[in-house]
Order: sequence, then C-alpha cells, then structure tokens
Amino acid sequence: KQYRIAVIPGDGIGKEVMPEGLRVLEAAAKKHNVSLHFDHFDFSSYDYYEKHGQMMPDDWKEKIGKHDAIYFGAVGWPAKIPDHVSLWGSLIKFRREFDQYVNLRPVRLMPGVPSPLAGRKPGDIDFWVVRENTEGEYSSVGGRMFPDTDREFVTQQTVMTRTGVDRILKFAFELAQSRPKKHLTSATKSNGISITMPYWDERVEAMAKKFPGVKWDKYHIDILTANFVLHPDWFDVVVGSNLFGDILSDLGPACTGTIGIAPSGNINPEGDFPSVFEPVHGSAPDIAGQGIANPIGMIWSGAMMFEHLGEKEAGKSIVEAIERTLAERTLRTKDLGGNADTTACGKAVADMVD
Amino acid sequence: KQYRIAVIPGDGIGKEVMPEGLRVLEAAAKKHNVSLHFDHFDFSSYDYYEKHGQMMPDDWKEKIGKHDAIYFGAVGWPAKIPDHVSLWGSLIKFRREFDQYVNLRPVRLMPGVPSPLAGRKPGDIDFWVVRENTEGEYSSVGGRMFPDTDREFVTQQTVMTRTGVDRILKFAFELAQSRPKKHLTSATKSNGISITMPYWDERVEAMAKKFPGVKWDKYHIDILTANFVLHPDWFDVVVGSNLFGDILSDLGPACTGTIGIAPSGNINPEGDFPSVFEPVHGSAPDIAGQGIANPIGMIWSGAMMFEHLGEKEAGKSIVEAIERTLAERTLRTKDLGGNADTTACGKAVADMVD
Ligand SMILES: CC(C)[C@H](C(=O)O)[C@@H](O)C(=O)O
Ligand SMILES: CC(C)[C@H](C(=O)O)[C@@H](O)C(=O)O
Repeated sequence: KQYRIAVIPGDGIGKEVMPEGLRVLEAAAKKHNVSLHFDHFDFSSYDYYEKHGQMMPDDWKEKIGKHDAIYFGAVGWPAKIPDHVSLWGSLIKFRREFDQYVNLRPVRLMPGVPSPLAGRKPGDIDFWVVRENTEGEYSSVGGRMFPDTDREFVTQQTVMTRTGVDRILKFAFELAQSRPKKHLTSATKSNGISITMPYWDERVEAMAKKFPGVKWDKYHIDILTANFVLHPDWFDVVVGSNLFGDILSDLGPACTGTIGIAPSGNINPEGDFPSVFEPVHGSAPDIAGQGIANPIGMIWSGAMMFEHLGEKEAGKSIVEAIERTLAERTLRTKDLGGNADTTACGKAVADMVD
Repeated sequence: KQYRIAVIPGDGIGKEVMPEGLRVLEAAAKKHNVSLHFDHFDFSSYDYYEKHGQMMPDDWKEKIGKHDAIYFGAVGWPAKIPDHVSLWGSLIKFRREFDQYVNLRPVRLMPGVPSPLAGRKPGDIDFWVVRENTEGEYSSVGGRMFPDTDREFVTQQTVMTRTGVDRILKFAFELAQSRPKKHLTSATKSNGISITMPYWDERVEAMAKKFPGVKWDKYHIDILTANFVLHPDWFDVVVGSNLFGDILSDLGPACTGTIGIAPSGNINPEGDFPSVFEPVHGSAPDIAGQGIANPIGMIWSGAMMFEHLGEKEAGKSIVEAIERTLAERTLRTKDLGGNADTTACGKAVADMVD
C-alpha cells in the first residue's frame, strides 16, 4: 500500500525543518520498503493568510481529509497575526473537525541533550503524556456580563462528556497495557475543582476495571507537576484533560531538556480522519531564515507518524538514528552545543537510518 | 500593641511542628519586643470531626474571626475522611469566608536544601508566587446531565469577576513594585482558554498602566511551567488564577527542593478578617507520630505572619535563623539528610534568632 501524506510546512522554521523531515522519512521508507506519496500544501501559514484573508481555503477538509496523515511544520507569527486567528484557524480546527482527540507526546531523556535536572541519565526518564485534545477546559461556552462596570464578570465552562473522557482514557490504558511497566497515572484536581474533576476520577476508576493488568494511580495536578521535577522516573503513561495535558506535555519535555526537539501527534485513533504530526516547537520567528533550526522535532514527529501508520520498524529506525545523531557533538545543531546547521543535522539523521 | 493569634494545629504532623513554630515565634517576639497572645483551638481536625461530626463548631467565625492572625498546622487525613470534607470544611472555608483572596508563597533556593535543578546555587532563585484564592476555576457552579447514559456530561464554570481579578493583580503589582527587580510575570492561557483568560490578560494590561515602574510580561501556563524548570532566575513576582497559582506554587518549591519546608499565607490584605499562615506540607499521615517531621515550613510561616502583621524585623530574623540552621547538617531533619528530630531542629532555629 502507498501512504498519501499531506505536507504542510506552515510558518517560520516550519519551512526550514520540513525538508529535513521529508529527507529522513524517505530514507526510512526506502530501508523498510514503505511507499510514501507526498502532497504539498501552502495553507495554514501567514503567507497564505496575507494573500487570501484566511488561514485555509474553504475546501480544506476535502483537500486533506482523505490523506493517511498530515505532516505539519509550525504555524503562528504573533507579530503579524494574533494566535487566536492563526492557531484557531488551523491547528485547533484540525483537532476538532478531524476529531483528533488524542494529543500524544513522549518525555524521554535523550543522549547529548543537557537536562536541567541534576543527576539524571538517558534511560532514566521515558514516558508518554496522553492529552485529551477536543473538549475540557478549551470550550467556547461562556461569556461576559455587566461589561465595563464594577460588577463585570466572565465565565467559561469546562465541559467533559462521557464519550470524550472515556475514549481518551481507553487510549491511555491501552497504551499503558502495551508497555513493559503497564503503569498509568491520571492527572486530577478533584480536591479543588469539585465537579468536573471528580467526574474524571470516576471515569478513570470505571475504565481501570477493564484493564486489570494496568497498575494505576492519580495525583492532583499541583503535586504532579512537582513530581515531574522530583521523580520523573515514576511515570510510564500520564493522562490528563486538555489543559492538564497541555501543561504536562510542555513541562515533561522541559525536564528532559527536549522542548526544542520534542515531537507530537494529534491523533484520531480510529482513522476516520487523518492525524497531524508536528514538532512541539513553534515557528520561532526569532531564528527563522538563518538555517540554524534544529530539525529533530520534525524528524521525530515523522517517526511517530510511521508508528501511527503501523510501520513500527520504520518508526523505530528513525528514533534510533536520532539517538545516534544526538550522541555526536559535530552532528548536533547550535541549540544543543553542536555546530551543524539544519541541513547537515537532517542529512546526518538520514544517513544513520538503518 | 499585643497581637492575638489563633493557634490551630489540626491533624498529623501539624500537631508536631506547631510547638516548634510557637517556640520560634516566642523567641523572635522576645528579641524584637513584640507582644503575642496565643489562643489554642482543637477544631479543623479529624479528632474534632470524630467527636462532633463536623470539622468546626457552628460559631467558628466568632471564635477566631477577631484575631490578628491564624497560625495553622495542617488539615486532612484521607484514609479517615475525604479531602472534600476536611479541606472544604475548614481551609477553603477560611479562604472564602474570611476573604483571604491572596495566597502567597516564596520560591527560594535555601542553603543546605538539595535542589533537583542542576547547577543552581542559593541566591539564584528568589521569587514569590501570588495566587488568586477565592474564585476562578474553583467555583461551585456547574453540574451533570444525562447521568449514567452515553450522553452524560458535566460542566463546571470558571468565574472571574472584575473585583476578584483586579484586587489580586493590584496586590501582585504592589509586591513587585516593592522589590528591587520590580518585575511581574502573569500566568495566562489565552491562546487556548478563550474567554476567561483573555479577560485576565485585559485586566493585567489595565492594572499595569497604574504601575509604570513595574516591568511585566506574561507566559502561557504550559511554557511557564517549563520556564520554572529551565529559567527559574527569570522570575520576581508571578501572579496566577486560583488553579494556575496552585500549580505554580507547588512546582516552584519543588524546583528549589523546598516543597517540604515551604510556608504560605492565605491573606486578607485589608485586615477585615484574619489571615491564615500554614506550611505547604499537609498532615503527612505516613510520618506522623514519629517526631521526625521538619518544622521549618511551620516556622517559616511564622515569619510570613510577622511580615503580615507589620513586624518586618521579627520576620526577617526568623528567615535568617532558618537559613543559618539549614546550613548546618547536624541541625537539619532527616528529610534533608540531617539527624535532628523535630524538636532539636525547632530549638536550633529558636537559638539562632537574633
Ligand atoms: C488541598 C487543596 C484544595 C488546596 C488547593 O488546591 O487550594 C491545596 O493544594 C493548596 O494549595 O492549598
Ligand atoms: C497554541 C496552543 C493553543 C496549543 C494548545 O494549548 O493546545 C499549544 O500549546 C499546544 O500544546 O499545541
């Protein structure tokens, strides 16, 4: 079978790291006999917005809705366009309209990447954050009353549906079950947020009954963030609501020093819609155009895409190539204390793939 | 003037660290000519609950509402009583009914306390987290529909009032203005939480105009937690909503290794009601009764109480005594690699006060 991939470089360094991502995808595809077809799209970018007054064409869903996956660079350019226009006009639209209800990110201590945590070695930290990606705290329900008076107030609802909560928990428990440690941690705050979070806990307990082989625990989000710093070795799979998952999936990579190179998947597990794979870093206007951006996040996202497509060997070969590349000072980009530029680093990973 | 302090030891190690807190308060009061009167109360504890079926007497507000401050140990014993009964029946009641709208916690790298962050030295990290303590995400507005069906959903509103937001921001800006760096950081998530958080940002901008001497910036909560780990030296005063402040004021102490010894104030700045000063650690059932609990959090909370009462010199003398005590291995408790018990550590601090 040939996989059809929609390629969207987007803004800023998204355009610079994308060629390296594609280079490595192709190298791994060749070694592992996977057939890929790329369709390139210029929308979901400031350039497109400037020309057309909107982030995406009206028929964006027809254009990319039938692809096997979307390989995405970065979007946003706050100095030129407000985040809520650029992000809610593309990325968040994908999540909602393609029902990508899982946001998945690895937290992994990699060789050659300086970690801010004292005394941790590669291999010590290796877990996944599973984030609910469509509802929860990111609802649009709410409003403002008595504007511009002393009585002014705003409200916004957190919304959790049985469907929304159960499916993300099922995904997280399944992921935990597939791993050697079989350990799931749930992020809650039921001692303070007294309606939605106890509901979340209730559903976790119900789901846990279906996965007797998985050990599970829960922490309130405040102490959980503390434990990411103090005991990152405690975790295997961590599941959280849209907001809690968002926080944990930035904090986790920060703890492993990998925030600039972490990948992510916005996943529709059923495959009714394409999933989006993108590096965690944004468009980084401050370093765009210099050819120094680190392409590892883009490349690693490609590995996650292969995994998702069921091409596990190809995905694994990329992750291993990344590890070997990072271990060599001369092949790393400047942000990691190396002296390679974007292309040199990308080529190095492509060469390492086997 | 004589200050009347309501003393509530509460549960577990709260009862063990309280005597040391009082010992040090008395030592500092004597040196600095401050007159203190203590009234002791046994409510807000599991023992009280067991006898009376409620956490506090009906007239708790009369009993402690006229004191100059409340010195509080710890409450909660999850194995015996659910958190929502113990905490919402006491601590959260104080916050709401005594309008303690500021929750204040220092984040400070102390001598002798192992920090999980690599390469940071005492003096490098020294900032305050200011948390809104009465509204926001901790509302009780919401509910459940279609229970036990596939359509089931729950909602809970985040509520931000002009009054509530402006007064916490004013407190935070004033605190920033009083410090050498005059720098305020606001925690937001306006790119994802699209109604309440943009409102928070709007009020920050409006308040900033009244404090032209304060430099301010804002970060989304996800990257802000990352920056606590990566760049804790960037911060001076950090202000956040009830939930964001809750998270940051656990994560901050974790980054400085002080989660077991951090103090906190639940403050009503106007003094219409008493403020509560309590260590951040809870009742710690697992180590209760052994005499090994670290009393520094309780003692440090006493320093914050003096500060709040306007007795700055007495407060400062306690913080300095804590620093000197922590610097000596033999005076530290076991959790910090020392060999002192609770009483020995408390006595050491009391002796150091000058
Ligand atoms: C116990 C809990 C309700 C409380 C809170 O979230 O406010 C605690 O975490 C705190 O920070 O004081
Ligand atoms: C840009 C923002 C809306 C987004 C989010 O909060 O979901 C980002 O932080 C992410 O994690 O993908």
